[in-house]
Amino acid sequence: MTKTIFDISMSLDGYINAQNPRPEAGLGDGGERLHEWAFNSKDERNRELLARGASLGAIISGRTNYDLSLPFWGADGPTGPARVPIVVLTHASPKESPANHVYTFVDGVQTAAKKASELARDKDIAVMGGADTFQQFLEAGLLDEISIHLVPVLFGGGTRLFEGFDSGHIMLEIIEVVNTEEAVHVRYRVVK
Amino acid sequence: MTKTIFDISMSLDGYINAQNPRPEAGLGDGGERLHEWAFNSKDERNRELLARGASLGAIISGRTNYDLSLPFWGADGPTGPARVPIVVLTHASPKESPANHVYTFVDGVQTAAKKASELARDKDIAVMGGADTFQQFLEAGLLDEISIHLVPVLFGGGTRLFEGFDSGHIMLEIIEVVNTEEAVHVRYRVVK
Repeated sequence: MTKTIFDISMSLDGYINAQNPRPEAGLGDGGERLHEWAFNSKDERNRELLARGASLGAIISGRTNYDLSLPFWGADGPTGPARVPIVVLTHASPKESPANHVYTFVDGVQTAAKKASELARDKDIAVMGGADTFQQFLEAGLLDEISIHLVPVLFGGGTRLFEGFDSGHIMLEIIEVVNTEEAVHVRYRVVK
Repeated sequence: MTKTIFDISMSLDGYINAQNPRPEAGLGDGGERLHEWAFNSKDERNRELLARGASLGAIISGRTNYDLSLPFWGADGPTGPARVPIVVLTHASPKESPANHVYTFVDGVQTAAKKASELARDKDIAVMGGADTFQQFLEAGLLDEISIHLVPVLFGGGTRLFEGFDSGHIMLEIIEVVNTEEAVHVRYRVVK
């Protein structure tokens, strides 16, 4: 049974990038702190969490996230050699993209969810940021799980993951906590 | 050696109360979810965390938090029979207060820190909310630790703990994680 999981690294004060994000520094000034658990950790548990990405059936990304990340992702996408297909939410496909790439460009969260589901078959789907993409999936009731890598830093500014919504409280259930020096990884089930 | 610890319960989306806080419902509509770990849990670890309050030397509270909490706290304050002294940050002392109470009313964070330090002797000092009080203590560099009880719920609105600041990133070090069904309790050291 396919699950749709939103997965992101966040500072304790709720930012998914620091101030001034741009193509050369997609996470903003000093924002790479958010990904130290993934790239600079000696802790085996961090590597195991990262490796789960390779077993995904599909990944959904917002367009801004795609634009900021393409220089690093290249044709293979964020999972590298595993080449998990990426569905990019956008109103218009980019004019250029790398040869033999893993990206599919679609408009609208429902279309993205449907396309990702076809691509994923029985495997899980991960929704990456940005914050807009998250909000749209959350409000459409399309998320089964939220996985937060809570990084021990206060940025004081940047892009907030949670901008607020009016549809009433959303209850969560903690299903996994992995505590490492670089981040506390908490996985929640969205109670529907 | 006295440590000054900010301690608060927060929803995953960063709110320390839900919408519409008022004297009859200090945590706002449905906001009591934030304190279920403290009052409705069968988990011994939650009770142990709560019991630490009795060993504090002093507690600092903002005025709004005091006003909203006094109906529950009464003359003894939030620690009940332990009667830990409370320093309340306020521009003007309240006209009435309960007989034989534990409160001291002071103006300004530096004065509050000094007063709490005298009262606490060698024991630790806890800073409670609200968000304004936290921001003032954080920006004044007066916090040694931040203790967050991260509750599995999204409120979508309410009072945010973290409103942003311009003084650069503040690095934290995870010193304790206690994972219960009702909350993930994370204690951080503020790296100075």
